[in-house]
Amino acid sequence: MRKALESVVGSDHVLIGRDDRLGRTGGLSYVDLLRHRGTGELAVPDAVVVPADPDEVQRVVEACAEHGVGLVPFGGGTSVVGGVQALRGDKESVVVLDLCRLDELVSVDPVSRLAVLRAGVVAPEAERLLAAHGFTLGHVPQSFERATIGGFAATRSAGQASAGYGRFEDMVEGVRMATPRGEWRLGVSPASAAGPDLRQLVVGSEGTFGVITEVTVRVRRLPTARRYEGFVLDGWTRGAEAVRELAQSRVLADVTRLSDPHETDMAFALSGGWKTALLRRYLRLRGVLDPCLLILGWEGGSDAEIAARRKATLRVLHRARPVPVGTAVGEKWRHGRFAGPRQRDALMDTGVCVETLETATYWSTVDTLRSAVRAALVDSLTEHGRTPIVACHISHAYETGASLYFTTIVPRDADDPFGQWTRAKAAACAAISANGPLGTISHHHAVGVDHAPYLPAEIGALGVDVLAAVKRELDPEGVLNPGKLLDR
Amino acid sequence: MRKALESVVGSDHVLIGRDDRLGRTGGLSYVDLLRHRGTGELAVPDAVVVPADPDEVQRVVEACAEHGVGLVPFGGGTSVVGGVQALRGDKESVVVLDLCRLDELVSVDPVSRLAVLRAGVVAPEAERLLAAHGFTLGHVPQSFERATIGGFAATRSAGQASAGYGRFEDMVEGVRMATPRGEWRLGVSPASAAGPDLRQLVVGSEGTFGVITEVTVRVRRLPTARRYEGFVLDGWTRGAEAVRELAQSRVLADVTRLSDPHETDMAFALSGGWKTALLRRYLRLRGVLDPCLLILGWEGGSDAEIAARRKATLRVLHRARPVPVGTAVGEKWRHGRFAGPRQRDALMDTGVCVETLETATYWSTVDTLRSAVRAALVDSLTEHGRTPIVACHISHAYETGASLYFTTIVPRDADDPFGQWTRAKAAACAAISANGPLGTISHHHAVGVDHAPYLPAEIGALGVDVLAAVKRELDPEGVLNPGKLLDR
Repeated sequence: MRKALESVVGSDHVLIGRDDRLGRTGGLSYVDLLRHRGTGELAVPDAVVVPADPDEVQRVVEACAEHGVGLVPFGGGTSVVGGVQALRGDKESVVVLDLCRLDELVSVDPVSRLAVLRAGVVAPEAERLLAAHGFTLGHVPQSFERATIGGFAATRSAGQASAGYGRFEDMVEGVRMATPRGEWRLGVSPASAAGPDLRQLVVGSEGTFGVITEVTVRVRRLPTARRYEGFVLDGWTRGAEAVRELAQSRVLADVTRLSDPHETDMAFALSGGWKTALLRRYLRLRGVLDPCLLILGWEGGSDAEIAARRKATLRVLHRARPVPVGTAVGEKWRHGRFAGPRQRDALMDTGVCVETLETATYWSTVDTLRSAVRAALVDSLTEHGRTPIVACHISHAYETGASLYFTTIVPRDADDPFGQWTRAKAAACAAISANGPLGTISHHHAVGVDHAPYLPAEIGALGVDVLAAVKRELDPEGVLNPGKLLDR
Repeated sequence: MRKALESVVGSDHVLIGRDDRLGRTGGLSYVDLLRHRGTGELAVPDAVVVPADPDEVQRVVEACAEHGVGLVPFGGGTSVVGGVQALRGDKESVVVLDLCRLDELVSVDPVSRLAVLRAGVVAPEAERLLAAHGFTLGHVPQSFERATIGGFAATRSAGQASAGYGRFEDMVEGVRMATPRGEWRLGVSPASAAGPDLRQLVVGSEGTFGVITEVTVRVRRLPTARRYEGFVLDGWTRGAEAVRELAQSRVLADVTRLSDPHETDMAFALSGGWKTALLRRYLRLRGVLDPCLLILGWEGGSDAEIAARRKATLRVLHRARPVPVGTAVGEKWRHGRFAGPRQRDALMDTGVCVETLETATYWSTVDTLRSAVRAALVDSLTEHGRTPIVACHISHAYETGASLYFTTIVPRDADDPFGQWTRAKAAACAAISANGPLGTISHHHAVGVDHAPYLPAEIGALGVDVLAAVKRELDPEGVLNPGKLLDR
């Protein structure tokens, strides 16, 4: 098998060194980090293959299918759901396919506002390459610094500015995917009634149907003006209602992010200093008992355009009696918005269990879902005298509903750090999946290994059968990303 | 079999009379109308089944699967691509399942702005039911007067106000579908990263995977203000560029419809009278050599809101030097916008071949595609001294591209009316499918029988295999809507 891979990519690009393999073994979830710190088992691949282009990817995929070797596509390695764990499934060996050499902007169509990017382009590099043509993708998830274009498509990513720029699936106009049955290209028009939209079957397929090698994305003019600012609303219910009204009036800011009182309190505590103390006093004076921080951000072609859009937003927001707390708060959030993962590493060093999880639901269920997940996390993690902090925010709002993003911080259980979190996560997932379910098992983190057991509750046994049928059709040997998406 | 069906729906709801069966035999394409006038063969079903609710539909579907009887779901019967032809495929008998009794608004969630509608609700009735709650769907395709909610979902419909309200697929939040393998329900949140979006696999499945029985749709506040008006731009190229700039600046009116010079000329000719003569003279005086009519329509909650949006649109439109021709032109278009199909019937009586077809592509290909389709139609239909009129408009614009809708009028070939149009249509489809392809084989008419041969060029052989695999999974006996979508 090694010979077969070397004949495709050259012997320099089949890596079998310990560090090379350890470096592509799992993602960035809390349990992944625990594993790297010695708790739990690491799924280490037998080799790492680094093809140069889509054609080499195609031949690697075919070689793996021929030899019955598992293949795990690997972009930025930022999965927090076990999406890039080098599991073997029923195969004897598994290789990781690192897409880092597929790092080109292939073409730009400035008239149609389309760009073709290779799957391995890291987000900041994509922005740099597009900026040279005057364009932006505007896709800024928290994983921005390391995540790739292919990963965004494979996982149905959503960025912090989704209200303005759309989810990644809204940007995908075409895909090129290497499957064991040959290359599959999709995308000939912005919209179509030529049967089901198969692009939306590829987006979110998490490397189980094929390896995405190129994505044709919709781009926008690079913004030349920007305004981020903070407001404080009194109470979660009023806050969520305000965001709902902005969404349903279709005057959302490009970034719209509402923290619940717990998260707001945490943000104030982390800021510290006399300015924050002054802010707390000011809010009390204004009669705000239960502060919820709302960050709004607009980006556009001119200050006038932003002023007009801001005016429309504030006209609706006004009813919720927001207390403006200034652009410094907004800018501070903007500058720190990719820092979460790094802060988590630092916190872990101090003996803390810190992790996030997320879901989404329709507006009428948002409060029920938030309470249910919160209760599940608090109940599970309150033990041996430990009390968790469970904070929540809405970062993606739609006309019909919103996402809920939870951050949990609790002193680490030194005896069973792995079990401490996996039990809490299971309790939260059960709360989401119960009763209907109450919401989706993932709004933007994807399924991977961790959420696969909860997928049937969401899409039905028939839905799982349909996905399995598509996989059998495209990957009859079952070599692609074993153990992900489907729990079978 | 008849007993089995009667035991589900009652003997009153299994219709076997000649007129009942003839009334559900095909749709409203030109060749369908020719068939009803005695040219070509009608595919008449053996029976018409009229279930009362989703449970009865489920049991009818299971009975057909058990007995190996073909089943054609039938809503408004407005398909123009053969989507409801009662074909048998490899089955000995075929029944039409008429959804007209599934005519309820099941529930409204005013907080989440969601409504659950049964599949058989006709569009005007859906609007009436929703209006009682202060809501609208805003979905107004030309088939509005007769088409159903289930049909909109099954065919990936797009309405004339798609720029404002979205395509029907954008409105679908959930579906309930009866399949031979059991009922399949989808939709728990406005957006999700829990694998591929399977709702987008159901939307556009044209009754081949199952019978859609209920659709959960996003609704909007009923508009209380409205403004429709006309502008004339000089030349197709400038006109299309203006629409592109509106789309890319994200200031499209809710309805945005640009006619090419041929269609504009036809509209002026049909209006006739001294007012039109005056308008033509006025345009010449203003230096407009090649008039292209642009209809813009806004709907909203107040005149002020519409004025603000109109201002933003006109600021961008201004660069194309539009000549305003007033709200009367806009209102006239609005009042006549569902009349096309009826006009066609009248024209047919006078010995005319009249039919439409449509496609969509990215902006940089719009001109090439329009020229190619136009040339194919003109070449094919110019024979025996006949000269066709081929008119075109853009009625759906996106940031990355637009739809192209062609209307063809030519004296009917009395000897071979069927061949005259089917040859022209084949030439147009070949022009769309060639070279890449140039565009989608259907932007909103769907695939049905007529476009099935062209689907592989668009989604690849693998795409067709994937659809076939999904069908095998959900409909192992292959009883659902034989001969549609897949040309196998």
